[in-house]
Order: sequence, then structure tokens, then C-alpha cells
Amino acid sequence: MAKRLFPLSKVYGLLEPGPVVMVTTAWEGKSNIMTMSWHTMMEFEPPIVGCVISNRNYSFEILKSTKECVINIPTLELAGKAVACGNTSGRRVDKFEAFGLTPEPASTVSAPLIAECYANLECRVTDARLVARYNFFILEVLKAWIEPSIKDPRTIHHRGKGAFMVAGETIKLRSKMK
Amino acid sequence: MAKRLFPLSKVYGLLEPGPVVMVTTAWEGKSNIMTMSWHTMMEFEPPIVGCVISNRNYSFEILKSTKECVINIPTLELAGKAVACGNTSGRRVDKFEAFGLTPEPASTVSAPLIAECYANLECRVTDARLVARYNFFILEVLKAWIEPSIKDPRTIHHRGKGAFMVAGETIKLRSKMK
Repeated sequence: MAKRLFPLSKVYGLLEPGPVVMVTTAWEGKSNIMTMSWHTMMEFEPPIVGCVISNRNYSFEILKSTKECVINIPTLELAGKAVACGNTSGRRVDKFEAFGLTPEPASTVSAPLIAECYANLECRVTDARLVARYNFFILEVLKAWIEPSIKDPRTIHHRGKGAFMVAGETIKLRSKMK
Repeated sequence: MAKRLFPLSKVYGLLEPGPVVMVTTAWEGKSNIMTMSWHTMMEFEPPIVGCVISNRNYSFEILKSTKECVINIPTLELAGKAVACGNTSGRRVDKFEAFGLTPEPASTVSAPLIAECYANLECRVTDARLVARYNFFILEVLKAWIEPSIKDPRTIHHRGKGAFMVAGETIKLRSKMK
């Protein structure tokens, strides 16, 4: 995909609908991918994102140490690979290789972008005070990339136990909300 | 709607897909409704939910004082009313009356359920340590109600500036994720 820089002020519109995302991290030259649904916007600009990454996940220690990750947003075509990444551990598997995903260098962090995802958010941990109690990381989005041809992305949204809602039509209402 | 109790262990499946929700609070016999999209699950059971409620909202002070609210989940039929609640302030308007919504008593908190919403989660604030910095409240879901006839709810998901994605089809994949 030929991605473009995406304004940080619009990042909330990517995460607010609640898509399943794929979080990449890197440690000593090795990259990992983790599938995640527990995230929320916390501030518009700079965009602040809160997310839960269980301490049972391989990515937990890497994120805690490196304080860097990329949030990659997949669409329906990648649903199988997103689930496969969720079903395996980076302790044993190189997920980029195992699932045919393409790492691309990020510009501000050492974790890679997943080329096949339609949007990528380069993030740094800015507040770790809820990590011990809730595994809750607070991230600042430093740079955002988007595939400009995708207007209404068919994101996937986890309903639990392998049931995923696929993003349907988009409607417009007169909202004063940002 | 003839709602049934919903197991707390399954609540994550309601919020994880990222629906727009309507948060109700009550203070001195008056109830309010606030529309919200910035929330995430933080624990399965008891269900813990984190959410951002701006200190510019009327509901902020009420929630901070009473430590109680209900998260009500609307479907497409209520989209206009959800947006109308977001466009007005409870300081000036009784939103139940103005928008023809029906308050129903909750069983564990003083905030009311919105009868027209297909699911209602009675919540108590359990951790307020990120309120000062991020307006971020951590809630425990005490009791959950659901309309059992709605299997694939057409929830709405905010893409920003009045654009809402409507929940589409549900697909099943072999996930080991809960």
C-alpha cells in the first residue's frame, strides 16, 4: 500500500469505533505482533490511547522495556491472520514469517509497521502508572499513516469467543461532537 | 423490552466491539444522559471498564460525587436520540423528557436504566486515580441486563464528526481468545 501521513488530529476517528488492532513491538532485532481489542482514545491531540496488554503476553515485557509499539489496524481481508496472531505466542513463533505479513520500518520507533494494515500508528508509552494494577498502558501517537484509498474500512470488532462483527455502512448525523 | 439478567462473565463481548454508549447518572432526584465513545474493557470478571468523561460535561461532577452510573447500549433505531443527547447539556435539558426516553430503576445504583437500550450495565467507580490527569474513570460492572431477542445488535460506532459506522454482519473464526 502507498501510505500517506495522516493528521494526528484525526487519529481518534480510527480507533473510536473499536476495531481489533495488531500491536507490533521489537526487541533485539526481533519483532512481534499481538492482537488486541481493549483500547480507548483518551485525548484528541496529541492523540493519547489507553490499552490493556496482559502480562501473560510476550509483548507485555517488550513494551514495558522499550516503551515503543505500533498500533496497526487490519480490515476484513486480514481477519484470519489477526486471529492467527492472537492464537500463537511470539515466544515460539516469528509471526511476520509464519503468517506472511510484511514488516516496514517506522519513522519514530523501532517497532515495525505491518504493511498490509490500512493504518499504522507509531506510539510511545507516556504513562505506566496503571500497568502494575491493570496491565494498562497509556500511549502517545507520534506519527500516523493511512492508505488514502480506503474511505470506509471494513474493520473487524470482537464480540467474544471468535465472533467478529464486520464494520457495516456509514451514516451521517448532525453531531456537534468532534 | 423484557430484559433478562446477563452473566457478568460475558459483558466484555458487549463493549469490546466499541459501540457508542449512553451513560446515565442521577443527582438529587434528577437524571442525566451522556453519549460516550471513549471506553475500553480492562478485566473480564468482575467486568472492569475504563472510560473518559470530559470535565466539561455535566455528568463529570455527578459521577465524581455519586460514583455511580449506568452504561446503556443503543442500537441504530436510537442513533438520532444518542446524537441529540450528545448535542445538549443536562445543565439545561431533562434529556429523558426532551428525547422521549424511558428511565427505569436500576437494582444496585441510583442512576436509571434507559429502557429503550438493548443492554444496560450498572456500574460503580472503583478507581479514580486517573481522573485528575485524564478524566479517566475505572468502573466495575455490578449488574448487567440484556434484551435476549437481539442476537447481532446493530450498534453504532463513531468515526468522528457525525459519521457513524453501523455494525454489519458477524463472522466466526477459530479463535483461542476469550
